[in-house]
Amino acid sequence: MKKTNTIIYSQKFFKVEEKNFSLTHGRSKRYSFVHRKPISVVLPLIDKNNLYLISQYRYIFSKRILEAPAGHIDEGETAIDAAKRELKEETGLVASNWKKLIEYDTSGSVIKSHVSIFLAKNLEKQESLPEEHEDIKLVKISLKNAVEKVLSGQISTAPTIIGILLLDKIYREEKI
Amino acid sequence: MKKTNTIIYSQKFFKVEEKNFSLTHGRSKRYSFVHRKPISVVLPLIDKNNLYLISQYRYIFSKRILEAPAGHIDEGETAIDAAKRELKEETGLVASNWKKLIEYDTSGSVIKSHVSIFLAKNLEKQESLPEEHEDIKLVKISLKNAVEKVLSGQISTAPTIIGILLLDKIYREEKI
Repeated sequence: MKKTNTIIYSQKFFKVEEKNFSLTHGRSKRYSFVHRKPISVVLPLIDKNNLYLISQYRYIFSKRILEAPAGHIDEGETAIDAAKRELKEETGLVASNWKKLIEYDTSGSVIKSHVSIFLAKNLEKQESLPEEHEDIKLVKISLKNAVEKVLSGQISTAPTIIGILLLDKIYREEKI
Repeated sequence: MKKTNTIIYSQKFFKVEEKNFSLTHGRSKRYSFVHRKPISVVLPLIDKNNLYLISQYRYIFSKRILEAPAGHIDEGETAIDAAKRELKEETGLVASNWKKLIEYDTSGSVIKSHVSIFLAKNLEKQESLPEEHEDIKLVKISLKNAVEKVLSGQISTAPTIIGILLLDKIYREEKI
């Protein structure tokens, strides 16, 4: 068994690594897996009942989808720094009140991808600075409507689903 | 710009593809991205208040985690077939009442990975058939406790988080 880690492929946002993993009962096995850069996601809250999402063309689906502002955490950046930067770049919004909602992993195997979701309150609109390939529309939506879109499949990506469902739970329990 | 798709890397559960994507405004761009085999996830419900999860050693975290039974959908298999197969293999449980809870995508970019979550009811315990590398313990847990573990970060992977939060929402609204 080869003893070193091998980088099979690497690009800006993820790499494919091959590595020996210790399993239970003293065994080990060599696996290749995807290691993605960690991600920060933001739910910008307008008030108790309303928030912003963005409508953005996503090439892997060949269509626009509705989702929360999000992006990869750069080297040397913290999760909250990336959340603030991405919110400003994608929407022009700046918030003075930040709170971490949850951290989670995308999967238990094959893909290692860590996601932090933040709530942003006390919003102020400034100028957005989308990247060249981004074509982003800011969408005001009620939490009630957002939950309905999760249940109907119109909001379909995990970070936004988890953020909306948790926000809905906190809201109903009046902890917001 | 190269016009063909290129498979950069491929293994049993995912491939890395490079491909020209049409963007908005008639532009196009070449991206590499991860395409994972689709996944089925199962929440086996004991009764209105209790379900089973599994405790399993996950090499990418170097520890056991608590999660819902799940696995990749094989070629020629439907999502519900894979859900039934994985539930039986991992837990020995067979269910006579199945319902799809939600389908979602892991991410809006970089990684294409589709997940279907099912509710399994009317459970019967038979013999489990875990794969060679699997070391699985069946864990009975109340929905209330599972929700608490999501909120505290002890349940930390997206498929199980989404399943538990949705189940909790349905339960509270008495649609279960």
